[in-house]
Amino acid sequence: MSTYEARLAALREQLKKDRLDGFVVPLTDEHMSEYVGAYAQRLAWLTGFQGSAGSAVVLPEAAAIFVDGRYTLQVREQVDGNLWQYQSVPQTSVASWLGEHAADGGRIGYDPWLHTSAWVKQATSALAEKGATLVAVNTNPIDAVWPDRPEPSKARLVRHDEVYAGRSARDKRQDMADWLMARKADAVVLSALDSIAWTFNIRGADVERTPVALAYAIVHADATADLYVAPEKISDDVIQHLGNAVRVHDRAGFADTLASFVDKTVAVDPERAVAAIFDLLDKGGAKILSQRDPAVLAKAVKNDAEVDGHRAAQARDGAALSRYLHWLSVEAPKGVLTELSAAAKLHGFREETGKLKDLSFDTISAFGPNGASPHYRVDEASSLPIKSGSLYLVDSGGQYLDGTTDVTRTIAVGTPSDEMRTRFTLVLKGHIALARAVFPAGTRGGQLDVLARQYLWAQGFDYAHGTGHGVGSFLSVHEGPQRIATFGGGDEPLRAGMILSNEPGYYKAGEYGIRIENLVLVEEREIAGAEQKMLGFETLTFAPIDRNVIDLALLTAEERDWLNSYHAKVLEVVGPQLKGDAKTWLESACAPL
Amino acid sequence: MSTYEARLAALREQLKKDRLDGFVVPLTDEHMSEYVGAYAQRLAWLTGFQGSAGSAVVLPEAAAIFVDGRYTLQVREQVDGNLWQYQSVPQTSVASWLGEHAADGGRIGYDPWLHTSAWVKQATSALAEKGATLVAVNTNPIDAVWPDRPEPSKARLVRHDEVYAGRSARDKRQDMADWLMARKADAVVLSALDSIAWTFNIRGADVERTPVALAYAIVHADATADLYVAPEKISDDVIQHLGNAVRVHDRAGFADTLASFVDKTVAVDPERAVAAIFDLLDKGGAKILSQRDPAVLAKAVKNDAEVDGHRAAQARDGAALSRYLHWLSVEAPKGVLTELSAAAKLHGFREETGKLKDLSFDTISAFGPNGASPHYRVDEASSLPIKSGSLYLVDSGGQYLDGTTDVTRTIAVGTPSDEMRTRFTLVLKGHIALARAVFPAGTRGGQLDVLARQYLWAQGFDYAHGTGHGVGSFLSVHEGPQRIATFGGGDEPLRAGMILSNEPGYYKAGEYGIRIENLVLVEEREIAGAEQKMLGFETLTFAPIDRNVIDLALLTAEERDWLNSYHAKVLEVVGPQLKGDAKTWLESACAPL
Repeated sequence: MSTYEARLAALREQLKKDRLDGFVVPLTDEHMSEYVGAYAQRLAWLTGFQGSAGSAVVLPEAAAIFVDGRYTLQVREQVDGNLWQYQSVPQTSVASWLGEHAADGGRIGYDPWLHTSAWVKQATSALAEKGATLVAVNTNPIDAVWPDRPEPSKARLVRHDEVYAGRSARDKRQDMADWLMARKADAVVLSALDSIAWTFNIRGADVERTPVALAYAIVHADATADLYVAPEKISDDVIQHLGNAVRVHDRAGFADTLASFVDKTVAVDPERAVAAIFDLLDKGGAKILSQRDPAVLAKAVKNDAEVDGHRAAQARDGAALSRYLHWLSVEAPKGVLTELSAAAKLHGFREETGKLKDLSFDTISAFGPNGASPHYRVDEASSLPIKSGSLYLVDSGGQYLDGTTDVTRTIAVGTPSDEMRTRFTLVLKGHIALARAVFPAGTRGGQLDVLARQYLWAQGFDYAHGTGHGVGSFLSVHEGPQRIATFGGGDEPLRAGMILSNEPGYYKAGEYGIRIENLVLVEEREIAGAEQKMLGFETLTFAPIDRNVIDLALLTAEERDWLNSYHAKVLEVVGPQLKGDAKTWLESACAPL
Repeated sequence: MSTYEARLAALREQLKKDRLDGFVVPLTDEHMSEYVGAYAQRLAWLTGFQGSAGSAVVLPEAAAIFVDGRYTLQVREQVDGNLWQYQSVPQTSVASWLGEHAADGGRIGYDPWLHTSAWVKQATSALAEKGATLVAVNTNPIDAVWPDRPEPSKARLVRHDEVYAGRSARDKRQDMADWLMARKADAVVLSALDSIAWTFNIRGADVERTPVALAYAIVHADATADLYVAPEKISDDVIQHLGNAVRVHDRAGFADTLASFVDKTVAVDPERAVAAIFDLLDKGGAKILSQRDPAVLAKAVKNDAEVDGHRAAQARDGAALSRYLHWLSVEAPKGVLTELSAAAKLHGFREETGKLKDLSFDTISAFGPNGASPHYRVDEASSLPIKSGSLYLVDSGGQYLDGTTDVTRTIAVGTPSDEMRTRFTLVLKGHIALARAVFPAGTRGGQLDVLARQYLWAQGFDYAHGTGHGVGSFLSVHEGPQRIATFGGGDEPLRAGMILSNEPGYYKAGEYGIRIENLVLVEEREIAGAEQKMLGFETLTFAPIDRNVIDLALLTAEERDWLNSYHAKVLEVVGPQLKGDAKTWLESACAPL
């Protein structure tokens, strides 16, 4: 019996003991996190699936794994098709599949700390047609059969200095108290880890790539707060930093507190807080006010200190990336690099800055056909040699105390084909159109998305991902609420101080991928004679865009001017940080076209 | 006591008799129509307001009228501020104002045949905070005090020939029957007048500018139907056209039928059907399936006969408009025209085609400052003389058996200023960008909106209306569900066969207005090497765009090419219909730039 066959069998035995006719296994944690700690990697343990998004359902006679289009191929490589049916979302969903496959009158278990209330409602109603019920479990049955399940991280919290945060935690809590007063509410529950880190000006190391700590918090209308975190993770320095107005409790006490808000009005975010939080508040007699977590928007609009920090981090990170691109220009033609060795070298250049805290996500180092998977993740098995005659795509970023970076460059190794040059240039034209956009205050990210796609569309091409996501300040590299996309957040109006990625791409399956990504800052734009308040983007990321893949004939004069100005700025910002051959290379890479 | 003071007093007396503490007066009819018959013009009768959208609330001691930004000025001219408070939507709403101003425990009346269920729910909940209730009235109290209220129109229905409709009414009902079967539903209620006209291939003359008849219909899963219409409006020819599968009833019988669907599943459109329909179905024991009326999308995707009809109507209408623009070029400089006399002349040119059934909306004939109101409606009091030195905007259209037209041109009278030329050219660039757009199947109208705004935005300008609306086939000039806008319908994917307007504008308050509007047809676009199914627009409207207001230096080569191709096509389509001076003028107006 294979490992995964045995694990599935063990879970089914456990479900029998728990008198359940099925169980749902999502890939998230109690905070609805995008990236989760090892202790919460239940889907990977059970199925072998290593992607970043998916879920599974186990029934007595059937089991299915649900992934989106990014992982259609990967799931077939990593998950045993004899044990698991492959299902595609959004074509199907866990709820609808359950409605079809659950036994009449069956009891399907779910862990209420791993689902939103909206999901519970939807799945309950899908099951109702079969007379089946969705049953909240007290302990997750996977944990009972996972013998060597990792403990949650014990990493200590650290204070995030106000020189980086730009505002004191006390001021932030006061804003939340005002927000509560305006809504006649008594308290707000914070369960999103980055919201808690931002609110209290603390950081942690419990999750890879994102400097957050596993915690819950409740902020009250008097601007005091309760913070729930494993006691061994809190140092005296952090206690002192938090101050008297923040009461620190063991994380285990959070559930009991939720049950104690009799007749109080408590704000909770239905997108970010799990069903268990709503259930406990409800059972305890609280009045629930469904509202977006007030940290979400406040965190997205960067203050001056955060913007300055980002500029410094981007300049430093741009120099590391430029050193790497120079190194690549020398080494790649020799034909001895691999995706993995190249990624390690890039990591090395970032570490040489002396300020790198972590990567901001696993580096996408993708040659040729691997580049055609927008969310490719290199490992020993997949790593291709980097050779002449195709494109190399590198999407990477760093976590620094002063900012989080995320940048993609696509490089020709050897001489690119005319087709590659044409399509790269179409992507570049979209990138430039978005970078140059001017728009009225109140414009939503989704309205601008087409600017980045229009030139690809004109030729019958497109890319199957959003154009831009928000980015945190020494926090999540994917941060809401703003987004430049026509789904999942594109409705949020852009505001001066927000940071987003600008990352159009093009992917030719089996051949190559192209993506050009810079981070941009939304800024107010003064225009003589303007009839209303206008906004625009300041590009924050500095590294050369490979001139060898540009078909100059396809650029307008304005686009060429933009590119030349951009490269002049790269030289100005990054140039002084380089020397010798690297500097000479940069000068040539940034020379006017 | 003035007329309107007396009317308000009479209504308040009636409310006392009806034991009501207030009443809500919307501007719509039992079909949620955009344009309503004289019998339903209760808001205008009560307040004097002549705009196309608004509502009012009457309380014992206060009364308020609610209009949107288009009518902020007009409401102050037409409605007595001593009697009525002016309120702006969406900044406030009837529901929220009621919540603030209704007396504690009061009974506020509403006519359930003039509101959606969603509105009733919202207003009920706003009133609940005051302990006040919303009360459905059996008869509208305004009707009781409006002595000379017009009867609903008695205009006869006519058949709409299949040569224009392109499909038989029988086929359309069969599609609806299939649609019902797929939803396990027994019947669908149609209450939108254009949906009924389209479904049965009939037309009427009960509403100005839109050839519809006041009726209700119910289509059943066996493809038979019931049509509810005043019996005196039905001729033998129409009875024969409708056939045996359509049972014709007096309109008065509709309500009783709704109450008879015990345990049947009945589809109703919550956006298009009024609350009374839901209430009657509910009380009668029907299961209600809230679904968009199935005629809405089917009607929007024009078939070949409808597309051919539109092309013919547009060519004919373009010739009438071109004759008018030539006439204007001769007469306007003489300084003796007025907005009203010019509009009458344009109407005359359309009538000379011999095929005009009606205008498709009241012509907007607007000189100088009047052009700055996007929804300006000329009357004796407002009509300005047309003189040199400013811009004249004319937005107009005709109803023909084969199609409905809607076109706007902006003309320089005398020499336009440099500013006018610049801003006109920015609008033109947006119009061209949208006209040239290519986009994947599945793209929603709202995604394209920015293409038309981008050049204005770059200079700090914008326009406060959508960029494009759907257009019917000898039906409503404003037809859903598709729309090029970021609100109110922009979420509908565009499909080949849909017709939309392309109408960016610019409005300088107190000085002039600019709008360039053509209708466009969504078509499949063959592109060599395309990786997916792509769509684009075919421009359907043909009339010269005034070259005197174009700053050629602001156009790219591609934009100039588009304009020259467009004018060549105008000459090809319209030229053969003109002769003499008009033809010479057209040749010059369409010569390459």
